[in-house]
Amino acid sequence: MATIVFCSVNKTAQTTARRYLFSHLKGLASSGESRLPLSCTHSPSVTFLAGIRCYPRGYSVRFMSHGTAGRAATGRTRRGALALIGAAAVTASAAVAGFLANANHFQRAEMATKVSRAAEENEQEGDILERCRGFMSPPVTDICVLQERKGEMRTRMEMLIMETQAAFCNALEEVDGGKFKVDRWQRNEGGGGISCVMQDGKVFEKAGVNVSVVFGNLTEEAARQMRSRGKVLKGKDGKLPFCAMGVSSVIHPKNPHIPTVHFNYRYFEIEEEDGECQYLTTKQWWFGGGTDLTPVYINKEDAFHFHNTLKEACDKHHHQYYPDFKKWCDRYFYIRHRGETRGIGGIFFDDLDSPSQEEAFNFVQSCARTVVPCYLPIVYKHLNDSFTDENKGWQQVRRGRYVEFNLVYDRGVKFGLATPGSRIESILMSLPLTARWEYMHEPAKGTMEAEMLEVLRNPKEWV
Amino acid sequence: MATIVFCSVNKTAQTTARRYLFSHLKGLASSGESRLPLSCTHSPSVTFLAGIRCYPRGYSVRFMSHGTAGRAATGRTRRGALALIGAAAVTASAAVAGFLANANHFQRAEMATKVSRAAEENEQEGDILERCRGFMSPPVTDICVLQERKGEMRTRMEMLIMETQAAFCNALEEVDGGKFKVDRWQRNEGGGGISCVMQDGKVFEKAGVNVSVVFGNLTEEAARQMRSRGKVLKGKDGKLPFCAMGVSSVIHPKNPHIPTVHFNYRYFEIEEEDGECQYLTTKQWWFGGGTDLTPVYINKEDAFHFHNTLKEACDKHHHQYYPDFKKWCDRYFYIRHRGETRGIGGIFFDDLDSPSQEEAFNFVQSCARTVVPCYLPIVYKHLNDSFTDENKGWQQVRRGRYVEFNLVYDRGVKFGLATPGSRIESILMSLPLTARWEYMHEPAKGTMEAEMLEVLRNPKEWV
Repeated sequence: MATIVFCSVNKTAQTTARRYLFSHLKGLASSGESRLPLSCTHSPSVTFLAGIRCYPRGYSVRFMSHGTAGRAATGRTRRGALALIGAAAVTASAAVAGFLANANHFQRAEMATKVSRAAEENEQEGDILERCRGFMSPPVTDICVLQERKGEMRTRMEMLIMETQAAFCNALEEVDGGKFKVDRWQRNEGGGGISCVMQDGKVFEKAGVNVSVVFGNLTEEAARQMRSRGKVLKGKDGKLPFCAMGVSSVIHPKNPHIPTVHFNYRYFEIEEEDGECQYLTTKQWWFGGGTDLTPVYINKEDAFHFHNTLKEACDKHHHQYYPDFKKWCDRYFYIRHRGETRGIGGIFFDDLDSPSQEEAFNFVQSCARTVVPCYLPIVYKHLNDSFTDENKGWQQVRRGRYVEFNLVYDRGVKFGLATPGSRIESILMSLPLTARWEYMHEPAKGTMEAEMLEVLRNPKEWV
Repeated sequence: MATIVFCSVNKTAQTTARRYLFSHLKGLASSGESRLPLSCTHSPSVTFLAGIRCYPRGYSVRFMSHGTAGRAATGRTRRGALALIGAAAVTASAAVAGFLANANHFQRAEMATKVSRAAEENEQEGDILERCRGFMSPPVTDICVLQERKGEMRTRMEMLIMETQAAFCNALEEVDGGKFKVDRWQRNEGGGGISCVMQDGKVFEKAGVNVSVVFGNLTEEAARQMRSRGKVLKGKDGKLPFCAMGVSSVIHPKNPHIPTVHFNYRYFEIEEEDGECQYLTTKQWWFGGGTDLTPVYINKEDAFHFHNTLKEACDKHHHQYYPDFKKWCDRYFYIRHRGETRGIGGIFFDDLDSPSQEEAFNFVQSCARTVVPCYLPIVYKHLNDSFTDENKGWQQVRRGRYVEFNLVYDRGVKFGLATPGSRIESILMSLPLTARWEYMHEPAKGTMEAEMLEVLRNPKEWV
């Protein structure tokens, strides 16, 4: 099989290949060309790409069971080959990008949501290679491995997060006119990622959209954290092989009337020894994620649109998802020492492992596909809003609070900063380009700033 | 005794008094008059002030043994009445304030250090009331209580931190031309503080000098933290009454050639049940503190002056203090996820409870009295240095790192954010007015920025 051939690539060839790939990607990023020509035949570029992504194996990093060969492949939680779903995310972006800058209502947003839903309903299992052409960079996992194992959840999720990254970046590039800088990175302990950052654009002060696919063995600290969340983990030979992947994004616009948005969708697998037979392994898996909005000023129409788009995505799967995950979001994005939420929320969930892997994935997919229709219409609506120095000052103070939340409370950031081999620049790309801390800042009563603060202190229902 | 009389002031009177005091202080702050007329006879203002500060007693908050009455007063670690030392800190400020703006060496700084040392050597036990006249605000503890118990360590330390605050604020006001806003605050759980902040001045972007004197019972979390630091604590009836006080300051100047400075000197007491007799209590006490510098660009002369001034203060007490506490400082102010120290260090120590309480206090006093001669000469030297947009940009990136350290690692900030009843604005006044996060910022080789980074990645010996 292709993967075995690629694993035999010697170290020098791998180094050369890596150098080639990185210089190539760098060139792409600076030239604004963010799509690679891809194929899985033996053209030189494929050989190089595959060689690189086999690198961890060649260095004895344990590659978690991916389904078809070896003992671990008998994992109990493995499902049969499932239809691949996922190609429609990009279309949502295209649908939204045509909006007029001064639209002051959301007919177009609703239209976009419908377009994306229709595409979703009609979607077919696409060719992996074909789908990869639209990505910001080749996926983290070797394309041939993905093709070979395209029915597995890890493959399906990696394709979804890559598609979400591409759809969102495309939509942002279109409204800003700027281009994302695309950085591929590898993690010595296993896996890597693709960070797309646009800084100091026309519309966006800082926009980051990050994909990561990492694997290895859980550190003691990470295992302790998992256990503290109620996970019962039985290590195999004292080790807990894991695989974690996700897409996350934070967008800080320049105009204080355009809110900051954040989303993150992730999938986690831990491989355990089977309780009954030492030759069997079992997988624990779960999904997590959410999308939330942090405006500088309250705009009820925006808030309704944002929450309603999420609610519609949730309602397709379970009527309790939106109300439960909306509350969870308000609780999670809470700056305790300020007595304020970070923004006006959205949805947030974690440890989602029911009712089935298939249904959980479908829900996550629906959520990931709402990020463009949730946010882009709001961006277009306020694109040309005028603002004062005071508006900008208040935005900077709110950015300071954003930094406080991210550095003091955010579980992902804390986990990242404490994990050896993390890529700090990708973790901290969520921080704004600029922020401000004024001593004893308190908006005067009756102002728009006070209205915002009131909502942050007493979260509201928007739908 | 006066204190008993004051405790009988009823709640309405206390509320009125508090309102009076705060409006009075507010008036003082805005008018730039920061000294209160004080006396301990029965003039109305004294009644008000004392009445307020007795408030915690009247509400059954346990006031830790302050030495003269009650069971706890027999605490074993209590010393005999000791000579009060402390009035000279203000003189150091005055000596430095006369420096010329363009001095490019430190003869004057050395002079200032000598002046302050001479004053220190000649100091006499001053009258508490007289010394309080120079403070930014009346002390946190009632003046009559301080007078009555002036030999006790808690009184001596409170006088020292109040004097340090005044000396530093005076010196900064003189160079900036602006005035500190003085806020008194009370902590419901016991104690309070005085926060002095100058924001957007001519020289200083944000300058904060905070005093706090808090007491009550250790929370479970705090006791756990103490125990994790090797402290053996035996609660009395399950409670651990404590008293903590300190002065801390962070100064962020506008000009990128003037470094940021931070210092903090603190004292901690915990009252425990005596192992041998249930009617006796024992006190554990310790000092902590340090002064450190965070330049935006390396200036070897500044670094030498700063470290040498600290070394001279340390060497008067123990030849190992400077080398040991310099190393500790580099270790403590380390931004692990960046692989950089926060600045070029200085000294840092904690849990200092030897060789005796008297000698430990004398050492802390020497350190607290170096803050003006350490820093002000550097401020005057660079007052009129010109700078570019690039210099300002690099300063803003370094400010971002300062925020990262303070929110992610600083023990004081973490403790404060996790402690109920903390005054958040005083804890977070250490954050700069403005900061910046650029994705993948890395200075070009051979630049002044790269030189700075090199030092932060590999701490140096400066003396």
